[in-house]
Amino acid sequence: MTNEFETLSAAFLPAVEAEMRSVLGADQRTSETADNVGRDDIFLGMIHYHMGWLDDQMQPVRSNSGKRIRPLLCLLTCSAAGGDWQQAVPAATAIEILHNFSLVHDDIQDASPTRRGRPTVWTLWGEPQAINTGDAMFALAHLALNRLTDRGVPSSIVVEAYRRFDETCVALTGGQYADMSFESRKQVGVDEYLKMITGKTAVLISLCCELGGLVADADEQAVHHLGRFGLDIGLAFQIHDDVLGIWGDESLTGKSAATDIVTRKKTLPVLYGLEKSSRLRALYQTEDNESNFVELAVRFLDEAGARKYAEERVKHYSDSALAHLKAAQPSDPAATALHQLSSMLLKRDH
Amino acid sequence: MTNEFETLSAAFLPAVEAEMRSVLGADQRTSETADNVGRDDIFLGMIHYHMGWLDDQMQPVRSNSGKRIRPLLCLLTCSAAGGDWQQAVPAATAIEILHNFSLVHDDIQDASPTRRGRPTVWTLWGEPQAINTGDAMFALAHLALNRLTDRGVPSSIVVEAYRRFDETCVALTGGQYADMSFESRKQVGVDEYLKMITGKTAVLISLCCELGGLVADADEQAVHHLGRFGLDIGLAFQIHDDVLGIWGDESLTGKSAATDIVTRKKTLPVLYGLEKSSRLRALYQTEDNESNFVELAVRFLDEAGARKYAEERVKHYSDSALAHLKAAQPSDPAATALHQLSSMLLKRDH
Repeated sequence: MTNEFETLSAAFLPAVEAEMRSVLGADQRTSETADNVGRDDIFLGMIHYHMGWLDDQMQPVRSNSGKRIRPLLCLLTCSAAGGDWQQAVPAATAIEILHNFSLVHDDIQDASPTRRGRPTVWTLWGEPQAINTGDAMFALAHLALNRLTDRGVPSSIVVEAYRRFDETCVALTGGQYADMSFESRKQVGVDEYLKMITGKTAVLISLCCELGGLVADADEQAVHHLGRFGLDIGLAFQIHDDVLGIWGDESLTGKSAATDIVTRKKTLPVLYGLEKSSRLRALYQTEDNESNFVELAVRFLDEAGARKYAEERVKHYSDSALAHLKAAQPSDPAATALHQLSSMLLKRDH
Repeated sequence: MTNEFETLSAAFLPAVEAEMRSVLGADQRTSETADNVGRDDIFLGMIHYHMGWLDDQMQPVRSNSGKRIRPLLCLLTCSAAGGDWQQAVPAATAIEILHNFSLVHDDIQDASPTRRGRPTVWTLWGEPQAINTGDAMFALAHLALNRLTDRGVPSSIVVEAYRRFDETCVALTGGQYADMSFESRKQVGVDEYLKMITGKTAVLISLCCELGGLVADADEQAVHHLGRFGLDIGLAFQIHDDVLGIWGDESLTGKSAATDIVTRKKTLPVLYGLEKSSRLRALYQTEDNESNFVELAVRFLDEAGARKYAEERVKHYSDSALAHLKAAQPSDPAATALHQLSSMLLKRDH
């Protein structure tokens, strides 16, 4: 089977990258190799640094800038819904900038010193400037969306796209609120957790697919099913990631085994285990990690059936996602690419 | 002369307040007097606290919530441009929420413990949650704008309103970037300062008037003149405030005299003085404030003509603002109210 996902990605990604550079003013830099970087250049330069286009001296660089899964989903759903993917490029760009805005603020909120192997914006320029850089990106994400008009998308659809975009932003901040609250709480229920990851992860994936459908002028039912496809894929992906955070193969995930146990992160398997196993609860009530803490925690989780539960949830959401995709009656080759992307996101060795 | 401004404000303000409560979900609170406040209530509750509607225990309260100058300007310009002010209520609301979002983030960036006599959001709930609360408000401001559609404003105008709204947000963050950079710099030019306050203050006032004109479906020239009216009033107001920060009458301004000298704030008269007076430069190079620091600084500023210069700038921008207002050919009674508001903003005893 041809890998339609790779073929289409190769066409889509340069278009998204070009639009992002244009929206974020990376085209306007007087000279990318200038020795003297003016003060005004640093305002946008901090954004370009975060995007992986400049180093901390404001010099051009190539660095890992993420997989751009979200814009690809947007363009693929647009195409699968019978639309012209090029019309959806501004929406795909808006979502990717929104995602990156949230990372800049997340890094401050989590006090993370690095991201993708580089110092975070707040580490280099301080928290006040990093808050402001994120705010600028939030506004620029909206300006990206405005460019739908330039590609001939009717104003009424653009206004509807804005509404869904900002409702998603409110849900994202709601998810972030819950996530931060969980850290300081002893007990978090499985249902609360699912609600939190819905806001923090799944609604944005859902938005990608909804906007793709909207720009394609798909009917309301199809847009609904595409949105649910994204939501359920997002949930499946997050819970799959939770499983890898405990039982993932170190050589394949690139993270050390059971990271989420060491840091006592409240992920789905752990919350399920804490509900079911009094021994795990007792273990997690100890203040410091004993030398055999990880070993014991994983054993109690396995005994409580936490892995099986989480893997069943992944399968449940994944099946539901594909049922919704089918109901949207997507057309090829984008439909095939969406299936391939879904499998890629949920396979064991990433 | 009747005070048209007061008459119209009395009609406009309740409409803006109701729309803000609706957009910010203050209507949805299950019971404003509930003893048990759920966790989800705190997410929106932090916003309602900042808006002055709730106390820190999430109980209803009446507190000073600012003068709502910006939404009033938006509704007055809409009416003066021949529009129905009620159609502009969502735009006025969006701008006021945007302004309040920026205050929440400003307070973190400036490490301000209080605002309007109450602890700031970050003081009560921590920086990470306060950053997130601001982000939620930024998204909600955009959702407010979306409601223009519900009031029959054509989609093409709504899309144009979004474009100007987010271009203004980018300019605001640019102004904030410059303002924060100035603090760590020894030398700042008068021109740089004017550019900074344009971004930090004047563009938002300008947006109020532009959106008022847009919603009224005024022609391009009129919208341009209304925008320039707002921009110049904003500049005049800020520089007037700079003058009061040094030479203001303590009993009238409510601040202690020469506050901006004590804190060595880089306002327009000071920057002008530093350019013109070597004695002021020498004084500002000392590390600690001597007992006669304020007295000497004010004397050197007066000798350099800094007060006269700043007052001339206020008059220049004020005259320019009124000329642009006239060119927009505004109709009464809102035109009279706009003149009254302008005088109010620039009078000596506020």
